[in-house]
Amino acid sequence: MSVETPSESKSKAFRRKTKKYVKNTCSMNLVKRRLPIINWLPKYKAEYFIQDVIAGITVGLTAIPQGIAYAVIAGLTPEYGLYASLTSGVIYVLFGSCYNVTVGPTAILAAMVAKYVSNYSADFAILTAFLSGVFMFVMGIFNLGFLVEFISMPVISGFTTAAALQIAAAQLKSFFGLKGSSGNYFAESIQNFFVNITTIQLWETVLSAGTIIMLMLLQKMGQGCKRTDGFVKQTRWFISLSRNAVVVVIGMIIAYVLKVTMDSEPLAIIGDIGSGLPKFSWPPFSTLVGEEVYSFRDMLSVLGVQSVMVPFVAILETVAIAKAFAAGGRIDATQELIAVGLCNIIGSFGQSMPITGSFTRTALNHVSGVKTPAGGVTKVLLLIVSLTFLTSTFYYIPKASLAGLIITAMFSMIDYGIFLKLWRNSLREFCILLATMIGCLFLGLEYGIIIGILIEALLLLYNVARPKIEINKIKCDKGDVTVVALCENVSYCAVEYVRQRVIKASSNEVPVVVDGGNLIKMDYTAAFNLMSIVKDLDTTHQIVLLNFRVDFKKLCLDIDSRYANKFVYAANYNEITDVFPKDV
Amino acid sequence: MSVETPSESKSKAFRRKTKKYVKNTCSMNLVKRRLPIINWLPKYKAEYFIQDVIAGITVGLTAIPQGIAYAVIAGLTPEYGLYASLTSGVIYVLFGSCYNVTVGPTAILAAMVAKYVSNYSADFAILTAFLSGVFMFVMGIFNLGFLVEFISMPVISGFTTAAALQIAAAQLKSFFGLKGSSGNYFAESIQNFFVNITTIQLWETVLSAGTIIMLMLLQKMGQGCKRTDGFVKQTRWFISLSRNAVVVVIGMIIAYVLKVTMDSEPLAIIGDIGSGLPKFSWPPFSTLVGEEVYSFRDMLSVLGVQSVMVPFVAILETVAIAKAFAAGGRIDATQELIAVGLCNIIGSFGQSMPITGSFTRTALNHVSGVKTPAGGVTKVLLLIVSLTFLTSTFYYIPKASLAGLIITAMFSMIDYGIFLKLWRNSLREFCILLATMIGCLFLGLEYGIIIGILIEALLLLYNVARPKIEINKIKCDKGDVTVVALCENVSYCAVEYVRQRVIKASSNEVPVVVDGGNLIKMDYTAAFNLMSIVKDLDTTHQIVLLNFRVDFKKLCLDIDSRYANKFVYAANYNEITDVFPKDV
Repeated sequence: MSVETPSESKSKAFRRKTKKYVKNTCSMNLVKRRLPIINWLPKYKAEYFIQDVIAGITVGLTAIPQGIAYAVIAGLTPEYGLYASLTSGVIYVLFGSCYNVTVGPTAILAAMVAKYVSNYSADFAILTAFLSGVFMFVMGIFNLGFLVEFISMPVISGFTTAAALQIAAAQLKSFFGLKGSSGNYFAESIQNFFVNITTIQLWETVLSAGTIIMLMLLQKMGQGCKRTDGFVKQTRWFISLSRNAVVVVIGMIIAYVLKVTMDSEPLAIIGDIGSGLPKFSWPPFSTLVGEEVYSFRDMLSVLGVQSVMVPFVAILETVAIAKAFAAGGRIDATQELIAVGLCNIIGSFGQSMPITGSFTRTALNHVSGVKTPAGGVTKVLLLIVSLTFLTSTFYYIPKASLAGLIITAMFSMIDYGIFLKLWRNSLREFCILLATMIGCLFLGLEYGIIIGILIEALLLLYNVARPKIEINKIKCDKGDVTVVALCENVSYCAVEYVRQRVIKASSNEVPVVVDGGNLIKMDYTAAFNLMSIVKDLDTTHQIVLLNFRVDFKKLCLDIDSRYANKFVYAANYNEITDVFPKDV
Repeated sequence: MSVETPSESKSKAFRRKTKKYVKNTCSMNLVKRRLPIINWLPKYKAEYFIQDVIAGITVGLTAIPQGIAYAVIAGLTPEYGLYASLTSGVIYVLFGSCYNVTVGPTAILAAMVAKYVSNYSADFAILTAFLSGVFMFVMGIFNLGFLVEFISMPVISGFTTAAALQIAAAQLKSFFGLKGSSGNYFAESIQNFFVNITTIQLWETVLSAGTIIMLMLLQKMGQGCKRTDGFVKQTRWFISLSRNAVVVVIGMIIAYVLKVTMDSEPLAIIGDIGSGLPKFSWPPFSTLVGEEVYSFRDMLSVLGVQSVMVPFVAILETVAIAKAFAAGGRIDATQELIAVGLCNIIGSFGQSMPITGSFTRTALNHVSGVKTPAGGVTKVLLLIVSLTFLTSTFYYIPKASLAGLIITAMFSMIDYGIFLKLWRNSLREFCILLATMIGCLFLGLEYGIIIGILIEALLLLYNVARPKIEINKIKCDKGDVTVVALCENVSYCAVEYVRQRVIKASSNEVPVVVDGGNLIKMDYTAAFNLMSIVKDLDTTHQIVLLNFRVDFKKLCLDIDSRYANKFVYAANYNEITDVFPKDV
């Protein structure tokens, strides 16, 4: 490389970067990345077809009962859950970059919109989907997906656990067939449960408990069976994977038989479901709650922080899933955000509740051996059939079956291990997990996760403000010196701490060596303070600055040029006394 | 030291700490620290007396014109500025730990409350003093003063410069004797100046410009003179230091003479000043604005973020001053916060505007050779005399003199050097300075400083999320290895970045070594992710984790115990191939 002045090389680097950027943004390559279907469809092979269809059916047989269940969690009528799976399924086939991933409603997103649906109207769920979509799309375009990295595992675990507990608690009413309301949040649900506990219904309780037992047995049944086994084992495998549909169908049959034989409806059932495909129109930018008209602005102020937290959680879920199923491969987070964002935006035109990647259905897709995003097509066809022909059958789905289904799903959502591991290894993070959980349970899911993120960020800042400093007395040939080694970077917020440590270390008459050999970054405030330490100590002590990088030295001397002779360089501490300006 | 299990040593350490804490909080030592007057008063010597008196007079002769000027900046009548110096002066003698420091109203705090005074009432300034006092007192008690360390020098400079510009701009009206309002903030003041420029008054302009020239000449006059010089030089020194009082007195004489000779008042003068000492009563927890009653809650919601930012800035000022005049000595920040907090709280009972340490008057105190906080007593006596006997004289203070005084003070407040230094050395921090300044000038001082603090904090977090990683190919005896050296700590928010770097580095078939020898901290999320990287790469690559600390290894193995053999230790990279489980 030829010798260049820094400014020349800077402008060259800038031109090179610009060129690269223009090339990247205007190429066929980009079109392929933004519309992945162009990539995989021409390469589609006949042998993929059968596997995609099987995977599509398995996933569809879970997507239908789960869609209904999650609509119930959100307090919506069941068809909304199916609408959400339907539109997003179509869009993801076009834009999705991760062939395993299945998108649709999830329990957590449903729980996050529940209080708006119950206190205001269903339109709030659809508007949330639209807003989330726009938010995710923009985050994708501007490459801001990395922001979710600021949510640590303890915060995620605390949030997920609290969500699971809240969702399960809200189902206690249906589980025991109680009267009264299910409650807006965890504490209220538990309270209502105890208030109404005398209204417990035997048959409901038996059916929900039976559903849970059945789900556990069906799961056990499939253990050790693979898709590629012989017919018997393959059937066991398939039934086990479709167990959500199986228990709901059994529940429906029981409800139907009871109705026919007893000529009444002893079980609480779902009831009428809107039939047919969703109506496509603008998302509800204004709505009617009771007799009051809510404008877009009113709706936004009702949603408040939620309109940011729902997409944030949605991104968290979908990125986590894509990462888990990329298995070491690299994922295109930008494309995932754009795809899921579009699913929400376009979905909101078709009455969809907020959607994102679904962990259970993605895992199901994976073990079912899906080959391309085309697996989603079969799922979508199944959903269309359900919405067109089966809604009168869905009428008989007992609420107790759904309660059993939901509660079982919730228990598998909790990561029990992390509690013990954090308790054993990191009390600090254990407390963060608890704080997040308590915040979620008693203030609401969105506030709990914000509390967790803020605590972590503040602790991180505090850590930056208290870098590790090692202070040692070293005996040299010509006498003792105190070495203050800055082991970590010193940012502006750490300078006062460093200053106090250095001044404390210099309390006796021994010369002071500040070792900056480990510093990688140094800002103006740090440099300024360093020079003020030198100035303060120079009158009473000998002080030298050891092994500071040349650019840091330049910055320091620009602040106070008198102390050029204080900067010294030595390979090890034994040579230090040699570099002192005066004899020690 | 005997061998102990960690839990034993932990509980011992806890007991020791508790003992120390109890001892610290209940000792005579603490009483002395909290009431520093107990310390210095018994040791008071006769020779201190004359020096304290001289310093008190010099400071007092500045405190009076500055107090009046800063009351004018806040839009209050002049006596408020004197009240503020009076009460706080008394309290600081009792509680102050830094004998140089002089407290009282400052230009910046005055500018921060100005818009509430002009748009609502003077009571808002007094309530702000009370709230600031409580905030500072609590921060002091809980040792939270370190929070101001999160304000970097570029943010402080941007804020100070903007405040100086805003204060100077608001004085343009008085400087030129213009009609119309002076404006609530910088842009408005400049706009009003140009709108009303045709109403310029010759005599006002001459007087203000004359004041500035006089101040500069008087400052020059004192150069090279010391307190300990002979009579002539000593007099020059004294007059130079009291130049603020001198120019105001000259202005007053001119105004008085003009009035007597011309039988009219050609100069805009201060006018009637409330005479006598301040009335002591509760701070205004409710107030009347026009005909509307504002409750405490209403007042709080008017003040908004200001009620936090005023004390924050006050802490910033007082800590910076204490630090500057401690000259390498240690300062008791806790005691400073408690003292200045009490000055504000008790002051607000005596109609005081918010106060804090004053840089100019503290410097004056220092060069005047003050020996103990008792110097403040003389200042207080001077203030009492002024309030009792001189208010009818103050009537003649011309607004133009004050404008000249204030504008001169503002130009000395701006740190011109930092602009160039940052431009040369750190473009990033230069931009932060500009952003803070622009925010302050166009949105208000309190928002500007918040913007600056947030940008810095977010950049800090981003830096933590992108630690330095060095990736090298190393040729060993048995073949190549890729070494991924983690040079800085890996926090939870950095794990995804590290993961991508490691996966990218492992794109070929060469074994991967992750060098964790530099890690000082590791949280659960980082450990979890590390194990997931190992899990992902284990199938395709050989991967080992080099020189991770034993406690990090323990945490990792608690997460996934299968990979104990992946942790290896080697003194240098040449030995790496020896430690691979299998042959490379």
